[in-house]
Amino acid sequence: MEQSRYGLRVTLPVGYNEARERTVAALQQEGFGVLTSIDVKQTLKQKLDKDFRKYVILGACNPVLAGRALDHELEIGLLLPCNVVVYETEPGCSAVAAMAPIPALGIVGDRPELRAIASEADERLRRVLAALELSSAHPSKSRQT
Amino acid sequence: MEQSRYGLRVTLPVGYNEARERTVAALQQEGFGVLTSIDVKQTLKQKLDKDFRKYVILGACNPVLAGRALDHELEIGLLLPCNVVVYETEPGCSAVAAMAPIPALGIVGDRPELRAIASEADERLRRVLAALELSSAHPSKSRQT
Repeated sequence: MEQSRYGLRVTLPVGYNEARERTVAALQQEGFGVLTSIDVKQTLKQKLDKDFRKYVILGACNPVLAGRALDHELEIGLLLPCNVVVYETEPGCSAVAAMAPIPALGIVGDRPELRAIASEADERLRRVLAALELSSAHPSKSRQT
Repeated sequence: MEQSRYGLRVTLPVGYNEARERTVAALQQEGFGVLTSIDVKQTLKQKLDKDFRKYVILGACNPVLAGRALDHELEIGLLLPCNVVVYETEPGCSAVAAMAPIPALGIVGDRPELRAIASEADERLRRVLAALELSSAHPSKSRQT
């Protein structure tokens, strides 16, 4: 797993569609439902006739964490849901990146009650990406489940 | 218009549904399509049986700006679309808040080419909120159009 300034990333040796399906399933395992899905390639083609790589922005929401965060900070909705992007790096190879909740929280102001929620979201997203890496390391195992 | 650490906000003397409709229309005037819409009240009720105020998270995207941003920074999708929230403050009164793109950009690292795009998005979102304020100040005018 790689860490960028604002995100966590794994690269998977699987095609885009497979990576996208695995990502949605791995998010569900950690309590994140995918509430929104933006097909970037399709949107840029439709709106601008611009060609772009296969790329989706998934809006992942853990309702328990979101509900707690909204109780503490009404406008935290501006930072919700947690974005997870899946994109093709080359045919048969994909990347999955997730927003790192703690840097995002830096915008809001670092308050203890929000930090606890962001830390839990961060841990869960790290487990999602770790599970995706593991499933690629042992593809036969992931297929059996 | 009020400015918080991470957002811009206006309060409108109109009900939630009216505020939501006006917000979508005002975003369209500045080239932002609403790609996603999360009904927070409904989602929290469905998932957690939790009561919450009327509240929607709109994912607003200006495809020209988004396309340029993605060309410069592939994973900027983690910060897209621009979130705009509309919520009820009391019956007949609503608030509209938009993510301020420039603080959000601070997470990514302040690069000149991205700053130019964020500045343009910021200006457009300010015009959206200013138009909403104006429409409330002159309700008869906004009705005629």
